[in-house]
Amino acid sequence: MTDHPALPRVLARLDADAEAATARLFDFLRIESISTDPAYKAPCKAAAEWLAAELRGIGFDAAVRETPGHPMVVGHTPGGSGPHLLFYGHYDVQPVDPLNLWTAPPFEPVIAEGPGGPEIRARGAADDKGQLMTFVEACRAWKAETGGLPANVSFLFEGEEESGSPSLIPFLEANREELKAELALVCDTGMWNAETPAISTMLRGMVGETIIVKAADRDLHSGMYGGPAANPIRVLSKILASLHDETGRVTLPGFYDGVEETPPDILAQWEALGFRHEEFLGAVGLSEPAGERGYSALEQIWARPTLEFNGIEGGYTGAGFKTVLPAEAFVKISCRLVGKQDPEAIRAALRARFEEMLPPDCTVEFEGKAGGSPGIVMPVDDPRFAAAREALSAEWPREAIFGGCGGSIPIVGHFQDILGMNSLLIGFGLDDDRIHSPNEKYSLTSFRKGARSWARVLGALGG
Amino acid sequence: MTDHPALPRVLARLDADAEAATARLFDFLRIESISTDPAYKAPCKAAAEWLAAELRGIGFDAAVRETPGHPMVVGHTPGGSGPHLLFYGHYDVQPVDPLNLWTAPPFEPVIAEGPGGPEIRARGAADDKGQLMTFVEACRAWKAETGGLPANVSFLFEGEEESGSPSLIPFLEANREELKAELALVCDTGMWNAETPAISTMLRGMVGETIIVKAADRDLHSGMYGGPAANPIRVLSKILASLHDETGRVTLPGFYDGVEETPPDILAQWEALGFRHEEFLGAVGLSEPAGERGYSALEQIWARPTLEFNGIEGGYTGAGFKTVLPAEAFVKISCRLVGKQDPEAIRAALRARFEEMLPPDCTVEFEGKAGGSPGIVMPVDDPRFAAAREALSAEWPREAIFGGCGGSIPIVGHFQDILGMNSLLIGFGLDDDRIHSPNEKYSLTSFRKGARSWARVLGALGG
Repeated sequence: MTDHPALPRVLARLDADAEAATARLFDFLRIESISTDPAYKAPCKAAAEWLAAELRGIGFDAAVRETPGHPMVVGHTPGGSGPHLLFYGHYDVQPVDPLNLWTAPPFEPVIAEGPGGPEIRARGAADDKGQLMTFVEACRAWKAETGGLPANVSFLFEGEEESGSPSLIPFLEANREELKAELALVCDTGMWNAETPAISTMLRGMVGETIIVKAADRDLHSGMYGGPAANPIRVLSKILASLHDETGRVTLPGFYDGVEETPPDILAQWEALGFRHEEFLGAVGLSEPAGERGYSALEQIWARPTLEFNGIEGGYTGAGFKTVLPAEAFVKISCRLVGKQDPEAIRAALRARFEEMLPPDCTVEFEGKAGGSPGIVMPVDDPRFAAAREALSAEWPREAIFGGCGGSIPIVGHFQDILGMNSLLIGFGLDDDRIHSPNEKYSLTSFRKGARSWARVLGALGG
Repeated sequence: MTDHPALPRVLARLDADAEAATARLFDFLRIESISTDPAYKAPCKAAAEWLAAELRGIGFDAAVRETPGHPMVVGHTPGGSGPHLLFYGHYDVQPVDPLNLWTAPPFEPVIAEGPGGPEIRARGAADDKGQLMTFVEACRAWKAETGGLPANVSFLFEGEEESGSPSLIPFLEANREELKAELALVCDTGMWNAETPAISTMLRGMVGETIIVKAADRDLHSGMYGGPAANPIRVLSKILASLHDETGRVTLPGFYDGVEETPPDILAQWEALGFRHEEFLGAVGLSEPAGERGYSALEQIWARPTLEFNGIEGGYTGAGFKTVLPAEAFVKISCRLVGKQDPEAIRAALRARFEEMLPPDCTVEFEGKAGGSPGIVMPVDDPRFAAAREALSAEWPREAIFGGCGGSIPIVGHFQDILGMNSLLIGFGLDDDRIHSPNEKYSLTSFRKGARSWARVLGALGG
């Protein structure tokens, strides 16, 4: 394959424009677009408007499109030629608590020197504002140098990715013809390591629930009622403790239906990657894989399902002590899914476990999280995947890999189901980006070489 | 036994002064003396000063006495004669959360019509401001009518009862000679029911801990780390679930050392009280005793120890969903103790259970609550107990009983150990007072007849 003749000029322009690109990203990062908290509705709207204005500034058509939740941004390249590609990203970010662990305010981006070089620190730096801007900057450079893009690109940015995407499916269904393309490009994943880019071809799905156990109709004094009164924290603990056996396996009936063992040849490829759990876990203060016994840490992340407790609360949690028997306690549970696991069957099994183990006088309520999604596997024999891999390999010190991804990107399943297209998942996040955590960062190298990578991939996929 | 000749006049004065007494209590209730939260240090001090001023206004010596925590108030009746009695109460109150469940602001007392008649609603109305003021009002009436009290009364009010009383033992030890009396009077307990007063002769002790389980050195993304990373909520659930067996018995080794079965004759007396757990539990939306199997609800409260979870928190607990693996989670546990159970041995067994069950990569921290106290049994054959019982029976529709009390009043143990005196525990709280809960109340009848009861008890115990 030969490179597009304009590519060297496009890459040179990206280099020349790098400072301005960082400033643009900083503007975007300052917008407090936390989608899960209704208090941040206005900043979410502002982030959408900012993105639409950016695309129009480059010379594309773009508009903010309302939904019952946070709006979408949809853009097109007028007069586009070549294969039709739909680029997807999300402008919303995770909440920032615990705020006291941030070394700088989460919405005041800074460049700081990190262990791996300069890094952009802010909520959303990596997930997903910095990532999606690598693609926008690549398009800007192509447009500026050649007057157009090498492919017919459309854009879809959503603002509810971190809060279950309740508006996504209706929007895709209502705009099927407008959004349908030959291939989706998604920038919300990571590199294998700082030198090795990756195309993610396996994604875990997800299903989540908030579950509330209630007993007495008020908080009780543990001196007066302690003994005969049911305690929701105790009930919750017993049920949660029942959900994993001593080997780390989930005990819900049917949980592993549709989960296949990873084929030996794939396992062999993964072993050749030289992944060391000591390093991966050591970076966050851990040492031993705590998941299903008998599987490597990499397999636990890429190819095995999980059931995790994301939050729990009940009773008095302030300073000091209060000898209360709480009226209720709740837990937030999410399962990462692989293979053909059915999210709704697993939700039903989880609910059934709570119903079955509930003692007298207790009730349980379920607040299902919208958007349960199954796991995904992409067709790695598609020649466009090979072309993208080659383009990435030209930019980075090491050859790009096809890998798994422990996270969930439900959009990929919806693109398959609703728009009938596969997704090329390329991203430049690193394991130490602290996404969803305090002090989230995005390597400046990821941002700059990411934009150059997309410029190359656009050239390689273009007509 | 004949009544003190001045008693009818004293009771009449209490009746005539009832409105003014309520107004005084309201002033006291408006002070936000939450001792467990350091933010309320100033109001705690203000409550102490208010009480000292009240005692001085009656004509007693009284002073606010500083401690390393919240101050004490100590008072004496100058030129007192008759037996020396020490009255104890506490001016601090519990926190008010969840604030949204209060129907009126917790520190703006009101009189409202309740199911049992008019009631004073405010935080501290029953626990313990309303209760202690019944005694102060009785003293005021005696002083006004007779120029003195029928006994030589001293006063001790503390401001840390709801936060483990860290300053109490040093204060008692440092002021042993000043505070030592023949008998302590404590007003922090309840009636058997609205018609039947009670002298509490058995009290449960308490030991408590806040326990924090930690794993990774930061919150992690459950997509990236879910599987191999240890989850503190899961670890905590497993350990908490291990603490009770399926019969409700606590599984800590040695937990029941020093717990004796209630003698059949005492059990027979309790059965004669006509306690119905259907009513007691039904009043708070429950129906079945959830404690140790094989014991009645009344025995579970009065004579059996408990281990309860008072609070739990970890991970994301806000609106929406956040797929985080938290770095830590904590639980607040308290045990109610009876008989000769050793608080420190139980604390050690609890800590050992956490240490033993802790998986690799996790650590545990203990924040012991000060003031572990054993259970207490009073000598009911003491003639002063009989005299007090007779005085109470004269005031109320039904004869006073000797009963148990599920709560812990550590001061009673300290009075025994440090000052060598027993305590006469008389209080006018009712089961539906919602102490420690939103909408705490104190029956106006409890307040008025409580003051009359103390006037009678003072006369009966006086020389």
